[in-house]
Amino acid sequence: MKIGILGTGMVGKTLATRLVELDHEVKMGSRTRDNPEATAWALAHGEGASHGTFADAAGFGELLVNATAGTASLTALEAAGADNLGGKTLMDVANTLDFSHGVPPSLAVVNTDSLGEQIQRTYPGLKVVKALNTMNCVLMADPAKLSGSHNVFVCGNDAQAKSLVMELLRSLGWPAEDIIDLGDIGAARGTEMLLPLWIRLMGVLGTPQFNFKIVR
Amino acid sequence: MKIGILGTGMVGKTLATRLVELDHEVKMGSRTRDNPEATAWALAHGEGASHGTFADAAGFGELLVNATAGTASLTALEAAGADNLGGKTLMDVANTLDFSHGVPPSLAVVNTDSLGEQIQRTYPGLKVVKALNTMNCVLMADPAKLSGSHNVFVCGNDAQAKSLVMELLRSLGWPAEDIIDLGDIGAARGTEMLLPLWIRLMGVLGTPQFNFKIVR
Repeated sequence: MKIGILGTGMVGKTLATRLVELDHEVKMGSRTRDNPEATAWALAHGEGASHGTFADAAGFGELLVNATAGTASLTALEAAGADNLGGKTLMDVANTLDFSHGVPPSLAVVNTDSLGEQIQRTYPGLKVVKALNTMNCVLMADPAKLSGSHNVFVCGNDAQAKSLVMELLRSLGWPAEDIIDLGDIGAARGTEMLLPLWIRLMGVLGTPQFNFKIVR
Repeated sequence: MKIGILGTGMVGKTLATRLVELDHEVKMGSRTRDNPEATAWALAHGEGASHGTFADAAGFGELLVNATAGTASLTALEAAGADNLGGKTLMDVANTLDFSHGVPPSLAVVNTDSLGEQIQRTYPGLKVVKALNTMNCVLMADPAKLSGSHNVFVCGNDAQAKSLVMELLRSLGWPAEDIIDLGDIGAARGTEMLLPLWIRLMGVLGTPQFNFKIVR
């Protein structure tokens, strides 16, 4: 599948690398076409890997991934352009961590709204699916790095778009029974609000390599 | 141990009942001394069970439990009285669920503050330990109701108070290895912000009998 990834940070690169390994064609997008890190990544990862602007990546992908910093996501999507986004499926893995008042970060959007909902409201035709934002990117891309089962949460308003994202998650190694469909995009409030606990846990456990499991 | 429980709702009663069964002396506190539900509870649970006002319960307990609705906790603690609270340990299990704008509830205190921190700031001598607020009260009181291990989070500024709460948790059936110490009371932001996801999960799973486990 042709996948456009917005964001060339650690999360974007980790997901892009794994998706190229799985034989997808991936174009990473950033603010400028000559982003040195992204250019180097594309050169290093063979024919299936390419790089361009946010607009290039959004126009290229059949499936899009928002891996930008949550506080910059709406700006990145604006640069991508409504026409390039169209009625595509966007997997949103971002969190609005706000470090402007120091550490630990607060959330820039929270409680009565979420980034997932903001994106969906701004681009009503886009099919936003929030997923994977509750864990470190290494585990996003390769859940088997932890032994035993653990969960990924998925939410969005469009059933077909969720199916497409869940299929992608299964290809990354997520067993179907570990994928929890939380319903509509409003559930993004809950998954984004997991971040402060996640950050505290990373501190006390001394590693980002952990994840949440729902025990029933 | 003598335990004072503030709040006579489902959470207070479930914890109180279990603690009496474990041979603690429990006084439940509510706004009025003649609260019919609490009076009936005390009559039904034998010698170790009693009921009074918030002030009565706070004065009685060596260990206190805040099981009031989070949006009413500061009012209840004011009624309990700073003198009765003194330098005691308060296990705070409350969440500031705000239903005033409908369902799902938002949180009345969130992101850059938490109820646990508010209580600690208001009563600097009190040793506030946030715990158990991330699950249904049946599991708080009896974690073995779920098979397999799952976690309870504890945070607070006073190490001795945390030890006391962890000892109580172990007596309720929480294995030591399932109790995660998150550090100071600032971590209450994270555990309180888990509630929106918890509520959504309850809806999609169709039961409140589930809990979070951290998989490493």
